[in-house]
Amino acid sequence: MKGEIIAVGTELLLGNIVNTNGQYLSRKLADLGIDVYYHVVVGDNLNRLTETIKTSLKRSDLIITCGGLGPTVDDLTKEGVSQAMGLKLLPDKKSIKKIKYIFNKSGRPMTENNIKQGYIPEGAVVLENDNGTAPGVLIERDGKTVIMLPGPPNELYPMFENKVFPWLKAKADSTIRSKVLRVIGVGEPEVEDMLKEIFNSQTNPTIAPYAKEGEVHLRITAKTDMPEESDRLIARMEQKVKAILGNNIYGYDNESLEEVVLNLLQQKKLTISLAESCTGGLITSRLTDIPGASASVISGVVSYSNDSKINILGVKEDTIRKYGAVSSQIAGEMAAGVKKLNNTDVGLSITGIAGPDGGSAEKPVGLCYVGIAIEDSAKVKKFIFNGNRKKIKWNSSSRALDFLRRELLSL
Amino acid sequence: MKGEIIAVGTELLLGNIVNTNGQYLSRKLADLGIDVYYHVVVGDNLNRLTETIKTSLKRSDLIITCGGLGPTVDDLTKEGVSQAMGLKLLPDKKSIKKIKYIFNKSGRPMTENNIKQGYIPEGAVVLENDNGTAPGVLIERDGKTVIMLPGPPNELYPMFENKVFPWLKAKADSTIRSKVLRVIGVGEPEVEDMLKEIFNSQTNPTIAPYAKEGEVHLRITAKTDMPEESDRLIARMEQKVKAILGNNIYGYDNESLEEVVLNLLQQKKLTISLAESCTGGLITSRLTDIPGASASVISGVVSYSNDSKINILGVKEDTIRKYGAVSSQIAGEMAAGVKKLNNTDVGLSITGIAGPDGGSAEKPVGLCYVGIAIEDSAKVKKFIFNGNRKKIKWNSSSRALDFLRRELLSL
Repeated sequence: MKGEIIAVGTELLLGNIVNTNGQYLSRKLADLGIDVYYHVVVGDNLNRLTETIKTSLKRSDLIITCGGLGPTVDDLTKEGVSQAMGLKLLPDKKSIKKIKYIFNKSGRPMTENNIKQGYIPEGAVVLENDNGTAPGVLIERDGKTVIMLPGPPNELYPMFENKVFPWLKAKADSTIRSKVLRVIGVGEPEVEDMLKEIFNSQTNPTIAPYAKEGEVHLRITAKTDMPEESDRLIARMEQKVKAILGNNIYGYDNESLEEVVLNLLQQKKLTISLAESCTGGLITSRLTDIPGASASVISGVVSYSNDSKINILGVKEDTIRKYGAVSSQIAGEMAAGVKKLNNTDVGLSITGIAGPDGGSAEKPVGLCYVGIAIEDSAKVKKFIFNGNRKKIKWNSSSRALDFLRRELLSL
Repeated sequence: MKGEIIAVGTELLLGNIVNTNGQYLSRKLADLGIDVYYHVVVGDNLNRLTETIKTSLKRSDLIITCGGLGPTVDDLTKEGVSQAMGLKLLPDKKSIKKIKYIFNKSGRPMTENNIKQGYIPEGAVVLENDNGTAPGVLIERDGKTVIMLPGPPNELYPMFENKVFPWLKAKADSTIRSKVLRVIGVGEPEVEDMLKEIFNSQTNPTIAPYAKEGEVHLRITAKTDMPEESDRLIARMEQKVKAILGNNIYGYDNESLEEVVLNLLQQKKLTISLAESCTGGLITSRLTDIPGASASVISGVVSYSNDSKINILGVKEDTIRKYGAVSSQIAGEMAAGVKKLNNTDVGLSITGIAGPDGGSAEKPVGLCYVGIAIEDSAKVKKFIFNGNRKKIKWNSSSRALDFLRRELLSL
């Protein structure tokens, strides 16, 4: 099957945004064994859009568009595809009802142009949008498949994963299976070095590293006639990699670090409270991104000022005076203090210098201490991170979660 | 001048990398007032590459390619362009000499295929590469211009800046300037409705809305012979839009909402503490993303459990029993409580249901109350958000920051 991805939006042609949807869809189609021969980006212009679709229909079997399904006059993808394929756009009752319901629920007035989102090319399948008002569309006609997806990634990704991927998987000729091993605590060059022999001798399955912010993801991909056979190949490769990387592998596929940590807390029936300084609430926010977090996460304190460390967490003024707010001692007192304050099983703390100011030769920007109090003991670990403020916040929050993960595993 | 950007490389079609060169070149061409109508990505395949160039030559005046100029058998851009334009590839003595010199200097052995990089289409101009071995190429023929640039950004950017930009600037007929107005508190369809007359009568400058997560960005773009004249047109349009949208415009260009709020706090010399429930620390984390936040942000409490609301923030148990933890009353008590606890000028609170569980008919998932305590008064605002847990967290954090922004403006 020859695939082609068309992103619609003048903002892409102006360089306001980069075509990450193209990359996302390419990866997914590669996983399915579908060859992608072209990406095209075209603006919000009906003529050029229609011509683009016509060209693509001549050379590709599968066309996936993203963007241009919204309510505005600039949203023209369905119009362009319908013109190129000679189809009428008809109102879809169910979609229109849903759009009205969403507006009704939110209490915002619905303007007339929103109805446009519920018009669908004749004979097409509607792909419901669980995260927005514009439904997606799937058309099969004359041996060609055209799939139209919304542009915002938070709408596109789940629609693709839940609706398009399974549909395409059923159509694909050979079976490609893949599994991602998520690694933290060792950098990409180190991972490459540790796995050098495996990387050099790979054929089927293949294994490839992807550097993520503060993590490395290893994708193992096998291509055979049978899913079971592919899975067997992947499992064998996974075992080899695990023997080398061990606990540095924290999760699989789409599992996030915060999800893994929360699952561990739940498995071990432990409650946690957090005291964050340099990360400003980011660790608590990441943990509470996971549904059901409230059963384990009792409270967080963002003790940005010394006063709040002293008054809320019970950190000793004397300790701050002696060692400074960014110190192993304070991290320990913060962890014990927040644990006591909230009467939780675990207390996690972090104190550091996120920059760009506030660093010194002795305590540079990027220095962080993470404390973990469990039962009567407290452990503190020191880290130094590079990069700008946001990067330091993110990486220190990740390594704090990872430290906690390793401690929970050892309980 | 109609422009088109072609990125060459199978790694783009596999999703291994994202097309940042396309974005970079788009921005640069927009600055020059050159309209870009298409981006195309094509793999390292001579037939498809040649066909792509032929199609582009029919519809565009200026084609910029990036990638595929290197020494390997997969580097085929010059071959594809030459075939499409009916040109011969001829050895360029100066380029070949330079390639040999670079290898000589580095002490690396030069394999024969490197010579290929010194072959140039007949009649073309060589663009010297100061950061690599593959020269760029510029061809002018039959009213069309084709410019071929190397793929690696550290070679492409300087070659474009130093050689291509000045050449194009001399050819370009006008200057494009643009400004982004960032809007919150009204959705994209509402903005379109409010600005309908402006949208329908726009010519120069143009104005286009872009829906962002929880925000709308309006890009005003003017194209004239003189930058000053473009700026004047933009300022006039901005005034018209401001007269309609007023305070819903929170910032300009790359300014973030958290940056605007933090600036207001600093201008008014106010300290703040935060009590977050459903957002789990996200608001505090966003504010502390901004350098210098520690001067204004004193502390945050993520009071996820009822106990922590009562014990740390001093919320009354009785109020929770009567109205529930997600209520206007609790939001008010949380804001006043955290303000008192930290002795700050402002207390900001949020309590809500982020889902997916915990909703009821009376209090659905997405319901949020935001409280703001300033001096002796406390205000509470109710919101209902759609989407998944992460989206509800993000949008409620944005609207809480926006509520605070409006309150600070009215002080």
